[in-house]
Amino acid sequence: MPHISLHEGLPGIRGLLAFSPETARPIGELADILLYAPNTLSQGERELIAAYVSHLNDCTYCHASHAAIAACHLQSESLVASVVQDPEHAAVSPKLKALLAVAGQVQRGGRHVTAAAVALARAEGATDKEIHDTVLIAAAFCLFNRYVDGLATITPTDPESYRQRAGFVAQHGYTAVLSQAQAAAARR
Amino acid sequence: MPHISLHEGLPGIRGLLAFSPETARPIGELADILLYAPNTLSQGERELIAAYVSHLNDCTYCHASHAAIAACHLQSESLVASVVQDPEHAAVSPKLKALLAVAGQVQRGGRHVTAAAVALARAEGATDKEIHDTVLIAAAFCLFNRYVDGLATITPTDPESYRQRAGFVAQHGYTAVLSQAQAAAARR
Repeated sequence: MPHISLHEGLPGIRGLLAFSPETARPIGELADILLYAPNTLSQGERELIAAYVSHLNDCTYCHASHAAIAACHLQSESLVASVVQDPEHAAVSPKLKALLAVAGQVQRGGRHVTAAAVALARAEGATDKEIHDTVLIAAAFCLFNRYVDGLATITPTDPESYRQRAGFVAQHGYTAVLSQAQAAAARR
Repeated sequence: MPHISLHEGLPGIRGLLAFSPETARPIGELADILLYAPNTLSQGERELIAAYVSHLNDCTYCHASHAAIAACHLQSESLVASVVQDPEHAAVSPKLKALLAVAGQVQRGGRHVTAAAVALARAEGATDKEIHDTVLIAAAFCLFNRYVDGLATITPTDPESYRQRAGFVAQHGYTAVLSQAQAAAARR
């Protein structure tokens, strides 16, 4: 049961976006820029970073959500599962592996990021902006995961519900998620 | 030395806001809503939560910055230091102590927040919105601290530089910080 009174029909972060429309706006915008807007890292690659960090933070709702969105973009649930479980041996580019390693260090804490891990990412072709964006995506999920679990939001258990939702987000992005939450809040 | 090429004259998160203006906008807006905009929790109380979480995350720049801003609002550096070191025995209200305990749980991870800690905050008079805002402030600093240290931004060592800066932020808020960073980026 959530720690505060949330809209019963909106699981995970969606209940929180409806509860607090003022903070929902910058949060939704940040997610959209980081995960959905044009970037030299593909939407699938960025969602993999999101799913991996959410897994490391043990956030079931965010992990299931972003793994499903990544699978939508990449057309493979098994690839996403292999990246989340063991990124170093998954079938992704050396550059993405190096960026996932940096993301894993960010999850442990800012001071855990090593110059060696950043240098490896750069040697594999990552730009300053890609390194920046990877650190910020990983850091943002250290916020989102704590927001979702820290208030004990509702976590659906049916994988199909995440798949269905993922199709919407992969197609329309995170400002559309925000509009839905705000409409739900207005109807409340 | 920062892991990516940042404006040399802008320490901590200010260099990152100038490096990435697109993400700076929602980040600055979120900080302004959480810490500076009108709220039933005072600006000083919210900055104490920010300073405490930044201390727990071992982020020198954010801790020094928000401790100095809290001291500006509360007119006491020693009070802020006592809260950061041992919130349970500091000279603040029972409600704020209970909220700081929740914030400390959020810092460890979303699943660490207990119903008992939330119930205690509520028993001391905290509303759903105050509990929500405390969790989100604590979660947001788990982002900011990782962003600042994960990219190894510049951390000034002179306490006076934080005091001077704090006066500006306490008076003008975080959208003013954002405007400054954007002007610096444009001049670059």
